[in-house]
Amino acid sequence: MTVYGFSPSGNCHKVRLLLEQLGHAYRWVETDSSRGATRAPAYLAKNPNGKVPMIELDDGRVLVESNAILCWLADGTSFLPSDPWAQAQALSWMFFEQYSHEPYIAVARFICGWTPADSPRRAGLPVLRQCGHAALRVMERHLASQSWFTGSEYGIADIALHAYTCVAPHGGIVLDAYPALRDWLARVEATPGFVPLPAPDAAAQALIDQST
Amino acid sequence: MTVYGFSPSGNCHKVRLLLEQLGHAYRWVETDSSRGATRAPAYLAKNPNGKVPMIELDDGRVLVESNAILCWLADGTSFLPSDPWAQAQALSWMFFEQYSHEPYIAVARFICGWTPADSPRRAGLPVLRQCGHAALRVMERHLASQSWFTGSEYGIADIALHAYTCVAPHGGIVLDAYPALRDWLARVEATPGFVPLPAPDAAAQALIDQST
Repeated sequence: MTVYGFSPSGNCHKVRLLLEQLGHAYRWVETDSSRGATRAPAYLAKNPNGKVPMIELDDGRVLVESNAILCWLADGTSFLPSDPWAQAQALSWMFFEQYSHEPYIAVARFICGWTPADSPRRAGLPVLRQCGHAALRVMERHLASQSWFTGSEYGIADIALHAYTCVAPHGGIVLDAYPALRDWLARVEATPGFVPLPAPDAAAQALIDQST
Repeated sequence: MTVYGFSPSGNCHKVRLLLEQLGHAYRWVETDSSRGATRAPAYLAKNPNGKVPMIELDDGRVLVESNAILCWLADGTSFLPSDPWAQAQALSWMFFEQYSHEPYIAVARFICGWTPADSPRRAGLPVLRQCGHAALRVMERHLASQSWFTGSEYGIADIALHAYTCVAPHGGIVLDAYPALRDWLARVEATPGFVPLPAPDAAAQALIDQST
């Protein structure tokens, strides 16, 4: 299997983390979406929506959307409960992640680290941070009484939500007010085979330091 | 089963459409999210994210996120293929819908019909429309060679994508350039048990008429 991914992207890292924890072999093709690699004609021919991650099987079949990839990889494993109601709850958190969490927390981080210091997009940061905190409050409330988002065990909803929560401070969204969430981040990071999201490169880190 | 939904919302209508096509009994509790009904304490106690739709089973269990609800309702039916790869493709389109389609096409419609004519949010309409057309182009390309988004048959990815595509013109996003997509809309609308999204009320329609 080939994974087309941009290493600093949490969406891409989700796929790498699950593959590592499942012990699956894969080839990683670095695809820098911040510099147009997903807009190249050869890439668009495989994924007309022009985003990473994308997986390609050895027979050429392609699957896109990070959380759909997680579902496919996790099918039949302990990372996704087999009970339909529990599966639906995991999916519910994964749709929450893509609709109510990532568009604020991941986008604030992207603007801080991967757009120029004078980018007009920075005017949107206060609203993104406010909406990001709203998502974190919803998570904190869940974690006050439950250990995981996937059901009774660690799994793909935890992987999906961990991806950008752990780097929310890169976007100026600090986690001090969320003790249960910080405990959950530590639990995820203690699971067997966990691999962290790579640190931003020096240029991105310098922009983040200026922005937060 | 009780469905908490706002009738003009495509996200809510998805659930109603599938329940009607499955022939399931349900109780619909009208919940006007445009007037704060999802911010009431009793609602937030059930869904801390404060959104519709939400389903509540007779034993009190709750499920949120329209597309997760569709997955749970469709499990084991013809509306969701049983093959894991085909399921993953359907889910991929449903994540596409929530990340790359709804935030543009549904939000443009909401701004046009459900915010005041002088709302500052209207300044965002040109970008929302541009991004909405990008999503429609991705769908048109898929439909040039395939009849459905769920796999070989009509199903929940079609329901998810139909919801706001059919009313894109309410947000000023016309469908003239997408013949395959218009044929697919007609195929969805010809499926047994199809029920349409209700027309906007007179106040919303007047705002839409001014805005498009």
